[in-house]
Amino acid sequence: MSSFNIDNAIRKIKDFPKKGILFYDITSILSDPEAFKHCIDYMAESFKNKNLDKIAAVEARGFVFAAPLADRLNLPLILVRKANKLPGETWSKSYSLEYGEDTVEIQKSDLIKEDNVLVVDDLIATGGTLKAACDLISETGANVEAIFAVVGLPFLNYEKLLSGYPVMTMINYDNE
Amino acid sequence: MSSFNIDNAIRKIKDFPKKGILFYDITSILSDPEAFKHCIDYMAESFKNKNLDKIAAVEARGFVFAAPLADRLNLPLILVRKANKLPGETWSKSYSLEYGEDTVEIQKSDLIKEDNVLVVDDLIATGGTLKAACDLISETGANVEAIFAVVGLPFLNYEKLLSGYPVMTMINYDNE
Repeated sequence: MSSFNIDNAIRKIKDFPKKGILFYDITSILSDPEAFKHCIDYMAESFKNKNLDKIAAVEARGFVFAAPLADRLNLPLILVRKANKLPGETWSKSYSLEYGEDTVEIQKSDLIKEDNVLVVDDLIATGGTLKAACDLISETGANVEAIFAVVGLPFLNYEKLLSGYPVMTMINYDNE
Repeated sequence: MSSFNIDNAIRKIKDFPKKGILFYDITSILSDPEAFKHCIDYMAESFKNKNLDKIAAVEARGFVFAAPLADRLNLPLILVRKANKLPGETWSKSYSLEYGEDTVEIQKSDLIKEDNVLVVDDLIATGGTLKAACDLISETGANVEAIFAVVGLPFLNYEKLLSGYPVMTMINYDNE
């Protein structure tokens, strides 16, 4: 694997989406083919021998990392979307946000019992959406083999919320 | 290029998102590795010699086709998103919908003058979002080399709205 420094490719933007938040912007990875290829290579290398059946992509930035990985590994790609975005019969799960709640959905036709699923997102902050996605996948009888994200923010304590699900990230940031 | 029949991989769902609409569901392509690979092969073959500088992905289903293509062609991937999703300085353009209006945005750092851009989405219906995306790209001084979508619904007259932009689709459907 290359020694590319992924930190250099992640733009840091102050006060987005609100004051006091330092936002780790992964779009600067996407616009740099060397950085993007490094991420997809890293993922493909990490998971090529993991006995995966499917890759689940979390809306919307998770799609951009999960889709090339599915292409590289020749695996089915399934979408985890917010409510009312997916047609046909869906499983859904609601979860609490700081204010209010949100819902994730998966098409019923996309999973069968005992599928081994890798769940991909761009960044793990509190982990709330990923927790709902993984619990939903588990409740269908499938198995969350691992969660992958390019960036982790462990100071937001996602490791506790996601305990029981193996988590892999490429780079973690501390609170500043 | 393979003789794969992409029509067989597209699920047709009646009355989604509302009564009377026949929805062409491309998630059934994603969950079929042979079908998905056929699409990405088709795109890569079609555009590998086209002197492209960048690939623009239209939120959100456009991401899943544009990202593997960017990976295959080793080109920068830029995101066209709805309002307030992209951090940093953005260009934005509002456009009319059947009811109300919507806005697309691109990060200013993502485009420079005379960039040749391929704009990718999953499906073209009325073409309203694609028209706004392409006009926005053009207004920055970049050039829309082409629009690509897997599915086209020409009975909704997108060809008129998008006139001036070359459009390529893999499969078109008539009104039923």
